[in-house]
Amino acid sequence: MSVGVSSARGFASDNSATIHPDVLAAVASVNVGHVFGYGHDEITRRVERLFAERFGAGSSTFFVFNGTAANVLALRAACRPWEAAICAQTAHLNVDEGGAPEAIAGVKLLTVLGADGKLSVEEVERRIERVGDEHAVQPRVVSISQCTELGTVYTLDELGELAELAHRHELVLHVDGARLANAAAALGCGLRELSADVGVDVLSFGGTKNGLLGGEAVVFLNSSLSEGFEYLRKQSLQLASKMRFIAVQFEALLTDELWRRCAEHANAMAARLGAAVGELPGLTITRPVQSNAVFARIPAAATRALQERFPFYVWDESTGEVRWMCSWDTTEEDVDSFAAAVRESLALHPA
Amino acid sequence: MSVGVSSARGFASDNSATIHPDVLAAVASVNVGHVFGYGHDEITRRVERLFAERFGAGSSTFFVFNGTAANVLALRAACRPWEAAICAQTAHLNVDEGGAPEAIAGVKLLTVLGADGKLSVEEVERRIERVGDEHAVQPRVVSISQCTELGTVYTLDELGELAELAHRHELVLHVDGARLANAAAALGCGLRELSADVGVDVLSFGGTKNGLLGGEAVVFLNSSLSEGFEYLRKQSLQLASKMRFIAVQFEALLTDELWRRCAEHANAMAARLGAAVGELPGLTITRPVQSNAVFARIPAAATRALQERFPFYVWDESTGEVRWMCSWDTTEEDVDSFAAAVRESLALHPA
Amino acid sequence: MSVGVSSARGFASDNSATIHPDVLAAVASVNVGHVFGYGHDEITRRVERLFAERFGAGSSTFFVFNGTAANVLALRAACRPWEAAICAQTAHLNVDEGGAPEAIAGVKLLTVLGADGKLSVEEVERRIERVGDEHAVQPRVVSISQCTELGTVYTLDELGELAELAHRHELVLHVDGARLANAAAALGCGLRELSADVGVDVLSFGGTKNGLLGGEAVVFLNSSLSEGFEYLRKQSLQLASKMRFIAVQFEALLTDELWRRCAEHANAMAARLGAAVGELPGLTITRPVQSNAVFARIPAAATRALQERFPFYVWDESTGEVRWMCSWDTTEEDVDSFAAAVRESLALHPA
Amino acid sequence: MSVGVSSARGFASDNSATIHPDVLAAVASVNVGHVFGYGHDEITRRVERLFAERFGAGSSTFFVFNGTAANVLALRAACRPWEAAICAQTAHLNVDEGGAPEAIAGVKLLTVLGADGKLSVEEVERRIERVGDEHAVQPRVVSISQCTELGTVYTLDELGELAELAHRHELVLHVDGARLANAAAALGCGLRELSADVGVDVLSFGGTKNGLLGGEAVVFLNSSLSEGFEYLRKQSLQLASKMRFIAVQFEALLTDELWRRCAEHANAMAARLGAAVGELPGLTITRPVQSNAVFARIPAAATRALQERFPFYVWDESTGEVRWMCSWDTTEEDVDSFAAAVRESLALHPA
Repeated sequence: MSVGVSSARGFASDNSATIHPDVLAAVASVNVGHVFGYGHDEITRRVERLFAERFGAGSSTFFVFNGTAANVLALRAACRPWEAAICAQTAHLNVDEGGAPEAIAGVKLLTVLGADGKLSVEEVERRIERVGDEHAVQPRVVSISQCTELGTVYTLDELGELAELAHRHELVLHVDGARLANAAAALGCGLRELSADVGVDVLSFGGTKNGLLGGEAVVFLNSSLSEGFEYLRKQSLQLASKMRFIAVQFEALLTDELWRRCAEHANAMAARLGAAVGELPGLTITRPVQSNAVFARIPAAATRALQERFPFYVWDESTGEVRWMCSWDTTEEDVDSFAAAVRESLALHPA
Repeated sequence: MSVGVSSARGFASDNSATIHPDVLAAVASVNVGHVFGYGHDEITRRVERLFAERFGAGSSTFFVFNGTAANVLALRAACRPWEAAICAQTAHLNVDEGGAPEAIAGVKLLTVLGADGKLSVEEVERRIERVGDEHAVQPRVVSISQCTELGTVYTLDELGELAELAHRHELVLHVDGARLANAAAALGCGLRELSADVGVDVLSFGGTKNGLLGGEAVVFLNSSLSEGFEYLRKQSLQLASKMRFIAVQFEALLTDELWRRCAEHANAMAARLGAAVGELPGLTITRPVQSNAVFARIPAAATRALQERFPFYVWDESTGEVRWMCSWDTTEEDVDSFAAAVRESLALHPA
Repeated sequence: MSVGVSSARGFASDNSATIHPDVLAAVASVNVGHVFGYGHDEITRRVERLFAERFGAGSSTFFVFNGTAANVLALRAACRPWEAAICAQTAHLNVDEGGAPEAIAGVKLLTVLGADGKLSVEEVERRIERVGDEHAVQPRVVSISQCTELGTVYTLDELGELAELAHRHELVLHVDGARLANAAAALGCGLRELSADVGVDVLSFGGTKNGLLGGEAVVFLNSSLSEGFEYLRKQSLQLASKMRFIAVQFEALLTDELWRRCAEHANAMAARLGAAVGELPGLTITRPVQSNAVFARIPAAATRALQERFPFYVWDESTGEVRWMCSWDTTEEDVDSFAAAVRESLALHPA
Repeated sequence: MSVGVSSARGFASDNSATIHPDVLAAVASVNVGHVFGYGHDEITRRVERLFAERFGAGSSTFFVFNGTAANVLALRAACRPWEAAICAQTAHLNVDEGGAPEAIAGVKLLTVLGADGKLSVEEVERRIERVGDEHAVQPRVVSISQCTELGTVYTLDELGELAELAHRHELVLHVDGARLANAAAALGCGLRELSADVGVDVLSFGGTKNGLLGGEAVVFLNSSLSEGFEYLRKQSLQLASKMRFIAVQFEALLTDELWRRCAEHANAMAARLGAAVGELPGLTITRPVQSNAVFARIPAAATRALQERFPFYVWDESTGEVRWMCSWDTTEEDVDSFAAAVRESLALHPA
């Protein structure tokens, strides 16, 4: 991936965005008095209860610092040393975690190709192989991203089928939900509907990309997996001492469905962008626009010109595919002026 | 360690405290527009430069989430798989990191007794043994805490002697500086004077216990150790995406020596508390009061009564030693009313 | 992989074979008197010197217990925590080491497709990507198998090109040489010619599959990689206390080129088998027969019938590809009676 | 530890000794025909059954290469990532495994002082602390050595008490039995009596130090611990391909109680040596002589003179304590001539 140089408000990533004012206000609101550290405080307790309301009474939630940690700790919790996770070749876990699954969790990833970042039941099932063969790692986790790295979204039916497959083989279904809010917004469903209700066992619920200062939640829907997780979190460098300030950010996010409002907005901005540029000559939308990302292919010269004015990533140098990411604070004006710039660049640099 | 139940402003830990208003204001001040994630932004760059001004031009600084991470990543950076760290039996690294040095860094700790938490040159030297013996881990790091877990402070001479010892044996000196500010305040010296100038190779500079929302810095004084640390940080689950909000907290801390003002205040509160209770019958101050902690021994019944009103930790159940920790936001009134409560408890529960 | 049930002398693997009598005699010959353990004995020293004669004066050799260890320890020696190895999807390292590269060495494998188990310069070069990107593991090792898992052999030119590629990018070339002897026999060259002379940095030299009771050697041609390897070997559970009995087996193997005689014989038996069955209707030889393995495709019913009489592995259940492995103790009669059985099975079970 | 230079039959270690002729004959006896690798052969099966006869029907046995592996794999099998093992400061596990428990198993060791290498119930119980505290590793294993590193032997009562303590706290009792045969010989009991019958959960049964070429067995008495151990063994680099040659060595050892005869002899030689030198002026026997080791203190000059003629280890440079180890092949003449040499050295180099 290469990235343009400007750092104005752009389309590089939803983690380039700001903190939502409600979130920062929530932090300030609990900045009073002393409370016990490490989550043994009433604020954290009440936010944990709020998660149980949203994800189901059988769930349990642990706050960690970032998405890499949320994913890697879920693997550590689910896998014994010889167990492995099946995931997409394009999964963040596989290509963007700096080898943490392997080096920190000791977990081998068994990759499948996927289409637009989504795993099919068939290709996952083919990977559940060599069970009982001591020379091979034993599949234990099916790990999917929802939304995927390519902005696509699993339907509730697809989730249910993957969960059913996993459980039939005594595996567990893990969801990298760095952008789970965007998926729920896209599907128009609740958090429980796309997790506990369809058979997800453990997920990460992303906050940082949806308006938080920083914080992610590991949510266990299958409580048998969470045994001892408090030790695992501490040992894995993820226990915040001033936990109230992480927890309360999530309280803001879960209040009045702020998470949904932010995600719906980001998704709408991507749809607007897709619509504005989709028919331009020289531009091909390469992935279904289902959440807050637009993937497209444009001539390299157009990309270079555009990156001088707006930061965004070239997703695949070899094909010229680019990624344009919208976030909770992207405005209609941002989208429109960017779309205009795309149009200009393409006019100046036709294919 | 056991802890009392109340959660009012107390003496449990400096991580029970609030965020300093200047720090929160700094966060709010940069909550504008998009910047690249993962520290590739101008705000983070300028704070890194600020650290280089404070700790010396040859230093390099990396922000991480918490103190466990800061320490464990320093070990990962310094040690090859067969290398080990010498530390105090009482070191946080040894007793309070959930086994992270061993499980995450793969580093064995070679403990020495220490006096009041401090390592002596003699006992460290005795531990530098079996060099070249393939059956034994090879000492590579001398790791000390400044301030120590017991609130004591190494003098600059002591630091220099430990560094000289370490270097003579081709080891490196690591400082767990979760409370480095309190040490510098106690010694009346600058950050560089108690680190680069005395031969420290790598340290963690704590922010969370000194008024930050959350954030620690790993500072390499010996730049040969930092090669590849950006990869190590990412892999070790410690690369913040919205880095500007961590970096800017440190900017606030380093501006107009906020770190020193906060630390001096906390130290002064501990001194005030020590003075107020030190002569009480039934109470023995067990460690020199040199920073922001008071360690004392009182009857168990007095402890129990006191814990009903103020949260604090019993440090050693077997001896009845307790720890009273002051923080940047501890007030004189807090100290005075707590001292009065101690007096009462001791009167009701004599030895 | 599935395997037939009989355990008569068959074609399952070269590790199903016996110990060569010269090797067992060598063990017995040094079973006299006490010597220091852990390789600090004169017998081990002289065998180490023998390796230096064979592989070049700059090489250094360490004995370990098995092939998994030889490969995984080479990775541990070559890689820092964030570094990765490029290998074939079919590599033993990737599919048959039980996740040891990831769980024990913490090394992520970057796989390429390969043709008949061999890596091409082009596909390796495409995998040397994202250098300097902290989110991605950094390629450090190109790991090839010689012979490959599919019985093919790299030419000296191909080895030289891969080494040149690796070095140009500051990577190292590792050779999994569990069957290096078979490759040298196939190429008609010496051990040094296909290792140090073409730029290999580190290799495993297999003994167990070529007549030893048990033992493998890790040979560093690039001595900068071996620093501290004695500690790594011990820590990685691979330091034999009664080392003389491992070392002396290799002495037998290197004496009068026993390794070559054994390997040439095994290769010749595979060639004889390939010639005997290659033209049979219903059978397709699927890989070039270049060393001691024959890969073929026959009808499933023929395979089942054959496995009742001779043990061998079905390599790929989905295609029906089988592997027939010859070893140092396979006789012409073994081959001829097996070939006859293949003929019978195919006659009874045509496609 | 320093060691003398000569390599004649001496008193350095029981792993300096030869292979018992019955063991080597057993290896030769199965060197016929092909069998499946990796222990899936009839020879290995029948030796596994033999272990079940000796250690109890509920036990299960896995062969590995060496003692380091046997111990470290038992820890990997018993501990989740946050769990720890309590052992003696002098334990091999703690001081002579090159950091493998920490680096390979990720297990922190919680050491206690011990007396003559033996753990007392009281000191173990004091170490079972901070249960439920997420900041601390959680005790899971009590690991003892039988015989200890200092040649002492736990009585059956002592073993039973430690097992009872462990189980009361939901811990498991692990025995490093590199010299278990010597302990059974010393106690005059059977293998089951000092393991399953007193509540041991998992042990290593050493072969290498008692006449084998090389091989150790991990024996699970508590079968719930062995689930998945076949994967763990493979991943931990300990699955021998030509397994029959390891297994059959143990068959020889268990036949007609060869293990006991060898161990009794070694013990008797140590007793003879202890008796011969115990009263010499200038020499103090420092540990009870209960198995095949004699620990003594003599003047440094005497040690140096003696080491020129006989190899043995100085156990503690600071006190001058030396270790003299007898093995299955130590003869009465060896002992007598060594005792005479000790007498001479002491005469020439009085305290």
